Amino acid sequence: VGTKLPAVGTTIFTVMSALAAEKNAVNLGQGFPDFNCDPKLLEDVTAAMAAGHNQYPPMPGIPALREAISAKISAQYGHDYSPATEITVTAGATQAIITAILAVVRPGDEVIVLEPCYDSYVPNIELAGGSVVRVPLVPGTFRPDFDKIAAALTTRTRAIIINTPHNPSATVWTEAEMRRLEELLAPTDVFVISDEVYEHMVFDAARHESVARFPGLAARSFIVSSFGKTYHVTGWKVGYVAAPAPLMAEFRKVHQFNVFTVNTPMQHALAQYMAEPKPYLELPAFYQRKRDLFAAGLAEKTRFRLLRSEGSYFQCVDISEVSDLSEAEFCLWLTREIGVAAIPLSAFYGNGFDQRVVRFCFAKKDETLLAALDRLARL
Amino acid sequence: VGTKLPAVGTTIFTVMSALAAEKNAVNLGQGFPDFNCDPKLLEDVTAAMAAGHNQYPPMPGIPALREAISAKISAQYGHDYSPATEITVTAGATQAIITAILAVVRPGDEVIVLEPCYDSYVPNIELAGGSVVRVPLVPGTFRPDFDKIAAALTTRTRAIIINTPHNPSATVWTEAEMRRLEELLAPTDVFVISDEVYEHMVFDAARHESVARFPGLAARSFIVSSFGKTYHVTGWKVGYVAAPAPLMAEFRKVHQFNVFTVNTPMQHALAQYMAEPKPYLELPAFYQRKRDLFAAGLAEKTRFRLLRSEGSYFQCVDISEVSDLSEAEFCLWLTREIGVAAIPLSAFYGNGFDQRVVRFCFAKKDETLLAALDRLARL
Ligand SMILES: CSCCC(=O)C(=O)O
Ligand SMILES: CSCCC(=O)C(=O)O
Repeated sequence: VGTKLPAVGTTIFTVMSALAAEKNAVNLGQGFPDFNCDPKLLEDVTAAMAAGHNQYPPMPGIPALREAISAKISAQYGHDYSPATEITVTAGATQAIITAILAVVRPGDEVIVLEPCYDSYVPNIELAGGSVVRVPLVPGTFRPDFDKIAAALTTRTRAIIINTPHNPSATVWTEAEMRRLEELLAPTDVFVISDEVYEHMVFDAARHESVARFPGLAARSFIVSSFGKTYHVTGWKVGYVAAPAPLMAEFRKVHQFNVFTVNTPMQHALAQYMAEPKPYLELPAFYQRKRDLFAAGLAEKTRFRLLRSEGSYFQCVDISEVSDLSEAEFCLWLTREIGVAAIPLSAFYGNGFDQRVVRFCFAKKDETLLAALDRLARL
Repeated sequence: VGTKLPAVGTTIFTVMSALAAEKNAVNLGQGFPDFNCDPKLLEDVTAAMAAGHNQYPPMPGIPALREAISAKISAQYGHDYSPATEITVTAGATQAIITAILAVVRPGDEVIVLEPCYDSYVPNIELAGGSVVRVPLVPGTFRPDFDKIAAALTTRTRAIIINTPHNPSATVWTEAEMRRLEELLAPTDVFVISDEVYEHMVFDAARHESVARFPGLAARSFIVSSFGKTYHVTGWKVGYVAAPAPLMAEFRKVHQFNVFTVNTPMQHALAQYMAEPKPYLELPAFYQRKRDLFAAGLAEKTRFRLLRSEGSYFQCVDISEVSDLSEAEFCLWLTREIGVAAIPLSAFYGNGFDQRVVRFCFAKKDETLLAALDRLARL
């Protein structure tokens, strides 16, 4: 056939979820909850369908949902986006990211990614004809290394992709780090694609530092978020992008010829639901309790060394004391022999860098986490 | 910003639907039904959500839906596609088409489109870095011109996009035409992207000639179809692609990093619904009656010259006897002053070619069609 993406196989999340299902393993690999969402949200879908909301919605999303998104960003981060021209509903965050990349990255442009990173970014950039410039996060701490980022900036740099709360490392960028980025980019025309899908899952003293809080960043950024993560409906595939009008105009040119628009009844239900008391305000406490339950169990029952989880759905652990296998081999073995699926961090690096760390997802029922801990205790 | 798509504005379908809404016009522009789908299908969504099917489905779609699609293609067109490796559920047909293009078209490759054509094809090819080669359908009849297609084939031709039943002209390719294409491509490695979203809407003596019926075409083709069109749920944004395994492997590499996967409850509902007696078997008669109602009204009440509608949702008319305006100006005027929205065929040509023809969509309630006819009678 003549492949355009020779380095690309099937995404690790699909591979591990399929293996977990086959082996009847507890799936702490792919990032999704194993509990259902609020039944009220499901009722809102049923009502929208019965009301006949089953045909094409407006291309950028229904106005009520765009207004609700704008109001939420304004309330949370103090930046106003115009629902008419600065917000677009997307078929999930992954579609938002590729669309932003296709909209701005021209053949030969450089795009900076901070490794480890979500596995769609690099093939997305390649499909746009861009050159991928990989900058590592600081080994061990996964904090941004601004000297390295500064050194990577060139006249050909078109965009940088950032992600906080961070998948897979579970770090959360600080206000000082965001300011450093703002200052670093100030003299440039570089765009920021800011993957903020875990914005509502930050723990302990951390606060989510959306690019929307920093005027110098907001003016050059596409903010990407996910209703799937926020409302426990990852399978609905609804997310959104917020960006200044001139950027959004370019985004929509591509969006309209990619998915054109997004599931109508789900949009109506989400708009309806967002008018209610805000359930995402409870998310930090909800997930922090799960993190603590899972982390305490790991500390008690295993010899994994725990990394700090500041936000997201994830807990990373160092496996050095437990196994000599590579991360990837360890995850396969753990799924097959111990019955718990995890994701190797090497899957988030272009060169498969192995630092003996794997990622568990704790967005699961308590009973699921306890069942996984029982199995992991056998290690 | 530095636009990548300088020629692209907002898709005509969005522009005309927005204007129709603003002017309270009867919207016969954008192709979607104004009636609701079978309530049974809505119940199936509600049941799927209640059963907890709200998280990520498998990347290529849930197995039950891929099996139902395979069985349908096999029963209708006599070609077997493996649900495991040759069928992928997509977020509508538009997403299927851009994904196929991104999967196979490399920078510098030529892709043949037959004008007039759906307005996403050309920007899709440009985003992939391909060169668009425009071949006109025969003026007046809109039949494929095989001499012109043969002349357009070069060693750089990577793919050709075909579409039958045809949007906007409503022609349906014959078996002889499909054979001509099969013969023409036999000595080449050219891929076919076959947009068959109106496959179940063919009228009078016509039969839908899917590429699946022609082994020499099936082996090189991505077939694209749409549950939105077939089940009257254009707003659900669910479609599919069928292709031989090596082509599908490339398709999925891109798909997984575009939308990753498609709405879970809708997939379950569609799989459930496809197991029932097949409602799409009634679609030709259902839409033929609407076409006849609308065409008879136009013939009686207006001086439009009707083109033959062999399939699809559309009736094209020549406006020469009615107006001296350009197609585009006429459609704006018709929407604003007469209160009926239509689509100019010039929107389907790169150079805005104006042949005095506009397109009406008759996938509407009888009362909507009658209301439009009443208004058109004023012309
Ligand atoms: C789109 S599948 C992956 C879900 C996720 O964000 C993750 O597991 O990292
Ligand atoms: C995706 S909007 C357009 C719907 C359609 O197929 C048409 O009107 O041609």
